[in-house]
Amino acid sequence: MGTPALLLFLVIALAAKSGCRGHHEAPSLWQSPLRFSADSAFKIALFADLHYGENAWTDWGPAQDDNSDRVMSAVLDMEIPDFVIYLGDVITANNLPIANATLYWDRALSSTRSRGIPWCSVFGNHDDAPFEWPSEWFSAAGIPQVICPPANISFSDGEVDDAALSDCNFKGTTRVKLISAEINDNGLSYSISGPKNLWPSVSNYVLQVSSSKDPKLPAVFLYFLDSGGGSYPEVVSNAQAEWFLRQSLKINPDASIPEIIFWHIPSTAYKKVAPMPIFGIHKPCVGSINKERVAPQEAEWGIMDMFVDRPSIKAVFAGHNHGLDWCCPYKNLWLCFARHTGYGGYGDWPRGSRILSMTEQPFSIESWIRMEDGTKHSHVILSS
Amino acid sequence: MGTPALLLFLVIALAAKSGCRGHHEAPSLWQSPLRFSADSAFKIALFADLHYGENAWTDWGPAQDDNSDRVMSAVLDMEIPDFVIYLGDVITANNLPIANATLYWDRALSSTRSRGIPWCSVFGNHDDAPFEWPSEWFSAAGIPQVICPPANISFSDGEVDDAALSDCNFKGTTRVKLISAEINDNGLSYSISGPKNLWPSVSNYVLQVSSSKDPKLPAVFLYFLDSGGGSYPEVVSNAQAEWFLRQSLKINPDASIPEIIFWHIPSTAYKKVAPMPIFGIHKPCVGSINKERVAPQEAEWGIMDMFVDRPSIKAVFAGHNHGLDWCCPYKNLWLCFARHTGYGGYGDWPRGSRILSMTEQPFSIESWIRMEDGTKHSHVILSS
Repeated sequence: MGTPALLLFLVIALAAKSGCRGHHEAPSLWQSPLRFSADSAFKIALFADLHYGENAWTDWGPAQDDNSDRVMSAVLDMEIPDFVIYLGDVITANNLPIANATLYWDRALSSTRSRGIPWCSVFGNHDDAPFEWPSEWFSAAGIPQVICPPANISFSDGEVDDAALSDCNFKGTTRVKLISAEINDNGLSYSISGPKNLWPSVSNYVLQVSSSKDPKLPAVFLYFLDSGGGSYPEVVSNAQAEWFLRQSLKINPDASIPEIIFWHIPSTAYKKVAPMPIFGIHKPCVGSINKERVAPQEAEWGIMDMFVDRPSIKAVFAGHNHGLDWCCPYKNLWLCFARHTGYGGYGDWPRGSRILSMTEQPFSIESWIRMEDGTKHSHVILSS
Repeated sequence: MGTPALLLFLVIALAAKSGCRGHHEAPSLWQSPLRFSADSAFKIALFADLHYGENAWTDWGPAQDDNSDRVMSAVLDMEIPDFVIYLGDVITANNLPIANATLYWDRALSSTRSRGIPWCSVFGNHDDAPFEWPSEWFSAAGIPQVICPPANISFSDGEVDDAALSDCNFKGTTRVKLISAEINDNGLSYSISGPKNLWPSVSNYVLQVSSSKDPKLPAVFLYFLDSGGGSYPEVVSNAQAEWFLRQSLKINPDASIPEIIFWHIPSTAYKKVAPMPIFGIHKPCVGSINKERVAPQEAEWGIMDMFVDRPSIKAVFAGHNHGLDWCCPYKNLWLCFARHTGYGGYGDWPRGSRILSMTEQPFSIESWIRMEDGTKHSHVILSS
């Protein structure tokens, strides 16, 4: 790799020793860097809980997906972000009676892709879940036609074509297959399939937003963590915590570069700062809906203490709870919910997107929620 | 197929119009018939809830499997049955972090196979379940070494070997794959992969026990029904009920031939006849343990009414509840539990096997439970 190529190598695939290559090593040579411009903020839109692919055998489901397309298009056209983060539950795989869910995942990316905006994704608890057969399909009403290739299944020689049969079992598309399809099919994707020694957890990686002055100089680090669910428990493992610690000490040893965390399921610490539902959201918390209890990760294996120990970490962003959109301070950082963006998934609260806007020098980070109808609310400064 | 071959064709694969071929059509030409002898009873042993493959990463799990081998060997050597029925939950797939569970299924068959005794199987709710990752594997203790082929996974060309990756996801071995492996690998297996139009339900078929006088003449029909669970709800569907009705009216239109039903999960009707736990088991019920509530199928889509309408149906046998081993009358038939045979699965009640013994002329069916330690109890006449 020559020097010019090195200069362009701006997406850092920070893989563990175990040998994660980072799918981006080769493609990223030609990828536009994530980078501050000299005179404007770096803006990120969070698309949380889109839940594409629900009830595809009815009219209702596809109509919701159209609605979700519309929300994202509206937000993108109003905010024109530099980057988009798909914050998990991109699809509702437990509602998808198909063998390969990557088509629905790809559909969720299309509004962003068609505008030439780069993005990345983390997994939620619905993304690789196996299909849950509705009980009523076993009643007299019967099973609707589902996408299943029986024509390929031959019993004539007494042998069964296992590949064809497994296509009819809807056991969920694996995290690795989903993220691989996203990366391989999209030059604009900054997602990375994380270190193999962290499996079954997959979406664990770091992206660098570079300085406007020097593309090699990091200005902000964005950490993405797979908070589990679907095919395995809803946890951030001790192994992930140790991986985070190693990475952060390596790339930002003196904690001088601001850092931000993104995951799907809130940690148990969110419960500690959650406003009481009956009192609404009051300062220092900022937000507009507080309609349910925090549904946190199943266990806390140490990563929150690591976050708190690093003054460089400014904020942690989660989705998962569609009825919560607040930010609250927790020790030296902020714990924030995104905003339910998709028409899929539970809840009828109006849809929107949490926007982050960062400046480089001096560093600042502020956030607000942009609604589908164009309104904007819940402005908060997260760097104070 | 010539006349001599026809004469030997005694296992009837009673498939629906949809095109189930029945894996046995070809192999069964050479298979010994299930048939009454002129002077002795036809005896069946029920092996219920063996739950092979639990906690294979500890010493405890493999030791339980050894114990289950010992139970079956003891029962087979004491009773010398003509046929064995594996009544579901042969394996605990949700405890199996391996890609292909057929090895554990095969292990469960070995005691019977090594004695040259024919058998068949139905599915329980644990047999095709996806692996449930233990939460503690995500703590500092970490994930034990599990059988997963990372060496085959190549990222070098930017493409992922999906087949290799899916081997590390432990999404459960499909019912069709399990039953196909059993059938293809064992000439003694009488299992049949049921009609495809009943999927995801698979183990639906009928076996004929022929008369001692004429191998073409049916003396008893044994019906096997997949009561679901694992990858889909715990139900016997309306489609299965209709299939049962069509089959029974076709092969036994005047209900003159005795019929017996086998499935894993008891129907809701079992709850209606269950003895009250505090009062023990009293006549007309017969049994020795009544230690828990009946855990029935999720819904009743009509098959129990069909059973009751057929005077030919003498008894229905279920597993699933390890703490129940009674038979109780229900209208014109008997509802029976088997006996927990395996050391896998919950409960420490002593292990055993329910035995059925039938005579042809006059037809009679009696049953008892043979324990691992050689004792025998709970004798009941089911044809009265």
